[in-house]
Amino acid sequence: MIGREIHAFAESIWGFNRSITGNGVRETLNSIKSIIPELKIRSVPSGTLAFDWIVPKEWKVSKAYIITPEGKKICDFQKHNLHLVGYSVPFSGTISLTELQDHLYSIPEQPDAIPYITSYYKERWGFCISHNDRLSLIDGNYHVVVDTELFDGFMNYGELVIPGKSPNEVFLSTYICHPSMANNELSGPCVLTFIARHLLTSAKSNYTYRIIFIPETIGSIVYLSKNLSKMKKRVFAGFNLTCIGDNRSYSYLPSKSGLTYSDRVAVHVLRFTDPNFVSYDWTDRGSDERQYCAPGVDLPVASLMRTKYGAYPEYHTSLDDLKKVVTPEGLQGGYLLVLKVLQAIEANACYKSKILCEPNMGKRGLYPTILQNKKGADVSRMMNVLSYCDGSFDLIEIAEILKTPIWKLYDTINTLLEHELIALNCNDKSK
Amino acid sequence: MIGREIHAFAESIWGFNRSITGNGVRETLNSIKSIIPELKIRSVPSGTLAFDWIVPKEWKVSKAYIITPEGKKICDFQKHNLHLVGYSVPFSGTISLTELQDHLYSIPEQPDAIPYITSYYKERWGFCISHNDRLSLIDGNYHVVVDTELFDGFMNYGELVIPGKSPNEVFLSTYICHPSMANNELSGPCVLTFIARHLLTSAKSNYTYRIIFIPETIGSIVYLSKNLSKMKKRVFAGFNLTCIGDNRSYSYLPSKSGLTYSDRVAVHVLRFTDPNFVSYDWTDRGSDERQYCAPGVDLPVASLMRTKYGAYPEYHTSLDDLKKVVTPEGLQGGYLLVLKVLQAIEANACYKSKILCEPNMGKRGLYPTILQNKKGADVSRMMNVLSYCDGSFDLIEIAEILKTPIWKLYDTINTLLEHELIALNCNDKSK
Amino acid sequence: MIGREIHAFAESIWGFNRSITGNGVRETLNSIKSIIPELKIRSVPSGTLAFDWIVPKEWKVSKAYIITPEGKKICDFQKHNLHLVGYSVPFSGTISLTELQDHLYSIPEQPDAIPYITSYYKERWGFCISHNDRLSLIDGNYHVVVDTELFDGFMNYGELVIPGKSPNEVFLSTYICHPSMANNELSGPCVLTFIARHLLTSAKSNYTYRIIFIPETIGSIVYLSKNLSKMKKRVFAGFNLTCIGDNRSYSYLPSKSGLTYSDRVAVHVLRFTDPNFVSYDWTDRGSDERQYCAPGVDLPVASLMRTKYGAYPEYHTSLDDLKKVVTPEGLQGGYLLVLKVLQAIEANACYKSKILCEPNMGKRGLYPTILQNKKGADVSRMMNVLSYCDGSFDLIEIAEILKTPIWKLYDTINTLLEHELIALNCNDKSK
Repeated sequence: MIGREIHAFAESIWGFNRSITGNGVRETLNSIKSIIPELKIRSVPSGTLAFDWIVPKEWKVSKAYIITPEGKKICDFQKHNLHLVGYSVPFSGTISLTELQDHLYSIPEQPDAIPYITSYYKERWGFCISHNDRLSLIDGNYHVVVDTELFDGFMNYGELVIPGKSPNEVFLSTYICHPSMANNELSGPCVLTFIARHLLTSAKSNYTYRIIFIPETIGSIVYLSKNLSKMKKRVFAGFNLTCIGDNRSYSYLPSKSGLTYSDRVAVHVLRFTDPNFVSYDWTDRGSDERQYCAPGVDLPVASLMRTKYGAYPEYHTSLDDLKKVVTPEGLQGGYLLVLKVLQAIEANACYKSKILCEPNMGKRGLYPTILQNKKGADVSRMMNVLSYCDGSFDLIEIAEILKTPIWKLYDTINTLLEHELIALNCNDKSK
Repeated sequence: MIGREIHAFAESIWGFNRSITGNGVRETLNSIKSIIPELKIRSVPSGTLAFDWIVPKEWKVSKAYIITPEGKKICDFQKHNLHLVGYSVPFSGTISLTELQDHLYSIPEQPDAIPYITSYYKERWGFCISHNDRLSLIDGNYHVVVDTELFDGFMNYGELVIPGKSPNEVFLSTYICHPSMANNELSGPCVLTFIARHLLTSAKSNYTYRIIFIPETIGSIVYLSKNLSKMKKRVFAGFNLTCIGDNRSYSYLPSKSGLTYSDRVAVHVLRFTDPNFVSYDWTDRGSDERQYCAPGVDLPVASLMRTKYGAYPEYHTSLDDLKKVVTPEGLQGGYLLVLKVLQAIEANACYKSKILCEPNMGKRGLYPTILQNKKGADVSRMMNVLSYCDGSFDLIEIAEILKTPIWKLYDTINTLLEHELIALNCNDKSK
Repeated sequence: MIGREIHAFAESIWGFNRSITGNGVRETLNSIKSIIPELKIRSVPSGTLAFDWIVPKEWKVSKAYIITPEGKKICDFQKHNLHLVGYSVPFSGTISLTELQDHLYSIPEQPDAIPYITSYYKERWGFCISHNDRLSLIDGNYHVVVDTELFDGFMNYGELVIPGKSPNEVFLSTYICHPSMANNELSGPCVLTFIARHLLTSAKSNYTYRIIFIPETIGSIVYLSKNLSKMKKRVFAGFNLTCIGDNRSYSYLPSKSGLTYSDRVAVHVLRFTDPNFVSYDWTDRGSDERQYCAPGVDLPVASLMRTKYGAYPEYHTSLDDLKKVVTPEGLQGGYLLVLKVLQAIEANACYKSKILCEPNMGKRGLYPTILQNKKGADVSRMMNVLSYCDGSFDLIEIAEILKTPIWKLYDTINTLLEHELIALNCNDKSK
């Protein structure tokens, strides 16, 4: 079961201190490369300009904790990397509880959860703590150690281009900047790693696949600043994979227009995967599709998800774990969804009947020779597919008309091709 | 009442042994020709190629029956032509009940019905029998006589082209290959015969009418193989008439796209004829529209029906009769539906107002000269029609906007034409 | 409160005997000119041809009344100008009650109401009377005095063109031919007078405003006959203002197609002004939009209303007054509706993001620097507006997508312009 394999991989990279830069990102990328050795790990220096942005300094954490008046060590970064506010600047000193409170973050409504807080673009230090622990703090002097460094280093990301028969590209993106949380966001990189492995170990695809593992926002902006003109020429379908590992629902967030080829394929697959999938709209966005569909960028990128960021209670807290939230079943469902979408893209094409009027199916053994009232569902499906093979309907359109998933038509198409009743009319939906 | 006349004609041709070829077809066509002498009866030799098909041998039945062990003659073709499986090959011999059972067809759920079975393209013989009769058969030897012939002869069909002012054509098709059954299918040829008589005896139409009486499937394929390029140039509307003689419902099966001119006219007329008419879709098809709308053929042909084949319990059995199922009322309704559709096609056109702003209707006696709160429905309708006579809306569109059947606008248009308030802008919807 | 000011103005012109011609029209136009001195008062001679129509003779009333057998003066035009049928020809004489009845108009269902009746294009005289008064008439001789004149004079209307930065025009029309009735129709001219005053006293608009005060039907036809070719070039939005002074509902009657720019703006504004606004269709029309949208005229003109003519019980009777029916609140709502529509037209434009990908909003102080789960509604709105500023969506489309009225976006757009994050892409929706 592939879901178990993905889950085990997620566990193996759980503890790395991922952020938008730093060692945790490199450790994560190296682990992914151990599964898909073709991955290129790219480095972009701090200070690099990318459109309206600057690649920030690299962040390094040596240690971070607080000693209470009772001498207890709390908020220890070694125990949970969520305890330290992301991109905290160095600090060391003894301060009162009152002063400390200004640097603490907790969630009163979720008293056992450590929240996830970052401050990438303004210098700050801070600690995240469960609200119950915070309430138990007593007056007195607290010794605070934030032993971090912000220095000119690199921002890293992973890139993999798998050539297909056509140079036209399917683009897949996920992000590797979140520390120890499971659905948002170990699920995306883990599922995408195994999707990439599948593509690398299968026969050559019809299309080229461009796959990236990046830090969110700054990573996608930097990647676009380097690749946009090429991508605008080649990318005809693309997906952001995020929150794709829990087993509670399937969710979809469309491209800005909602009318791209990506949207058409994904909505078709989702409808037949889970008729109750949750359909968001563009104003609900919150991940890298913000960049991919920005004005002037306008790539056909939508988001495939299980339960969306912000839509589940454990989101952005220590409760988003690999035990209760992200499961082998959840990851398997996410993986299969992505696979079915890619297979639909690979298979979708327009065919054209080679014969005027209905062919004589009986003489080919494809039709009952005695006419009674009912013919079987297979024969009906074949005659319906034939009827729409006029060169103008693609397989997804035919499947939608027949209220059946496209994957139920793969055999029918093969039979019709074998009997030379249809021929490929066009298979490149990117034009 | 025209329904009675059509019903009497149906009774007069009830007993002929119609099939895709043979004497029964010729007898039927000759009877039709007695009503519309302009009909041409065409002959196509067995073995003729038509696209993917070959015109089969002609089938002739001399006699067919079974003698039971008790010496009783059963399944006698003379008594009901449904008893013999269509296109049965010759056979004569004495066989056991067990052997005989392999050649018997009955319907356990309809124990009094003789089913309708054919085997045109694989050599077989067989008998159709009511299930009750079948259950009463005893063990013993059965003497079977199937005195038939399959020989190089002809496939026949009837064709009638009625020239109109325009060479653009309305195409009407029905089929004459079903033996003694009433709704499916004596109703189609009988209604179409009287529609043709009406057209032949009326003033010259705006459009040319191409009317054919053919055996289903092979007949339409052969006809298309001879006439397709001409028809693709000229036919702008067309209908398959089938199952149009019972009085239970009105039904509609669209062209493949559902968006042709035929669909637009027919749906408008049906909606105002019976708001509860049954609307099928293309995947429910099962008659000659399969050929007329096949890829590459793509004629604008839809099916006008009362209760559709497969949708009534007596379908394809001896219960589909001229007593309980097909009635004068049912045939009359079908006839009037077709007539209203043709009249709508004849009348539909775009008109253009000849005057800028509203005309002064009062000075023409077309408007009340004293302004009180309410004007009549006629005046309202006239002002509305005038408002849409801008050269872009055709009468069907105007009728749809006004939620009224097109036939309620015929008088209004005539009044506006007489007062020279509007002029014809275009009347050829085939372009 | 502007509603009170408009209401006071309506009271000041209440008693004038408005009709399609005559002194009452001139007195009304002069009163309007006292508020907007830039108004031009135009005169068109009787007998002037305009398309299918002729400007009628001017109508003058000196006095009109009836003396009952008891010597009581009734139906006195001096007391209420509705008593005299509009355009009554002169008559003086003594007639029986039976003869008189042919010249009396009343409404049995509204026994206290004097109805509003006219006979512009056929010579008649008549009196309107409450049904209760009519029932109390006794047998005997009635002395009738209709001291009127129909003579070659003028038809008058008011015209005001307020130049904007663009020569493209917004057209506003209302009618001044109804005697003493309030919603239909003192409300339209009174609201439009104050809209014109607002435009004249504000900074120069983006667009030019063409504003007319005309007699209904003959006035709009005459106006079009003089201005049509110019208007067809320039007018990209227009509204007929009628029945816009009661406080019971908001109503909308679209242009003929319902798809013009006027329709798009007005429906947007109405939806956010009153989600329960009453939406009529073109077949419900009854005012000058009949001419403005006539075939060949085809101007983008729709009607903005409070409670539509014909849709309230006091319509076209003496009950349509300035006390119960038309109120300061009602007029204020109508005025603000028109103003919001005009402001939306002025503000609507397409903007284009000046930066590829999302801008770094944090460094501009437009985004929280610490990333917690929720950002505010203002930030969300700004990011959404930015996302749709791709040069193709106009502000109304963006507002519709964001389910917010356009006026909530004005500040957002200003902020984005100030920070040079967007630039105007096009603002002329008339092309």
